[in-house]
Amino acid sequence: MKRKSLDREKCPIARTLDVIGDWWSLLIVRDAFLGKRRFGEFQKSLGLAKNILSRRLRKLVSHGVLEVGAASDGSAYQEYVLTEKGRRLLIVLVALRQWGETCLFEEGELDLLLVDQKSGQPVKPLELRSKDGRILGPDDLRTVGTSD
Amino acid sequence: MKRKSLDREKCPIARTLDVIGDWWSLLIVRDAFLGKRRFGEFQKSLGLAKNILSRRLRKLVSHGVLEVGAASDGSAYQEYVLTEKGRRLLIVLVALRQWGETCLFEEGELDLLLVDQKSGQPVKPLELRSKDGRILGPDDLRTVGTSD
Repeated sequence: MKRKSLDREKCPIARTLDVIGDWWSLLIVRDAFLGKRRFGEFQKSLGLAKNILSRRLRKLVSHGVLEVGAASDGSAYQEYVLTEKGRRLLIVLVALRQWGETCLFEEGELDLLLVDQKSGQPVKPLELRSKDGRILGPDDLRTVGTSD
Repeated sequence: MKRKSLDREKCPIARTLDVIGDWWSLLIVRDAFLGKRRFGEFQKSLGLAKNILSRRLRKLVSHGVLEVGAASDGSAYQEYVLTEKGRRLLIVLVALRQWGETCLFEEGELDLLLVDQKSGQPVKPLELRSKDGRILGPDDLRTVGTSD
């Protein structure tokens, strides 16, 4: 489906969705965080058509979220690895995960937890805070022009 | 495009994307946070086809992200308002916004800032922390089964 590109939008949310908002893209990024690197690994994990996977990978590479490198084992395979820009998507994935955990799972249904490796304890829920540390909700916010 | 539903997936990220991962859905939620309520307001803001907007709104309502109510001015219009579940998507939108701000805008290009109403200062970047307050990055995490 052709659609209006959002890449020059002034809204950072729209511009972000232009890069990672296609169906499958964030699941590819999730898998990359989980250590998957090869076309076949992503395909097996996600079960999507090869042409779509290849289009999604190409777009993520062109936007600098993933980079392509030689296989770590010296074989002829190409590998897709998160760049620093890609690794910064961690917070987005954690936000999606925590919303799902809270809003889409029944009590006792969740069977995979995201934990801090050192303590083995679940990570803290993300909180939006002001510079001086107050917790902020939707009604505490507004957007202002930088030239205001 | 028909595709595998992810609504019974064990991964909370996949399940979340099943609800809000369609193209346009998060921009509709963003607009709802900005106070838009009517079909025509969303349509004008987003410039998408009416049939797609109507499908997206229906899906967000069916998943309890938006609810439909009578117009606040007593007219015959229907209004779409975020539920509590919808309002919890704030963190997801802020995470998308902050990634975009950091990774997709040139120096000086950003002209809309998200600020704390009380202080007028930009909100703090989201941070992933452990229960005891340490900042966590991708390499500090793992997923574990709840039955482990």
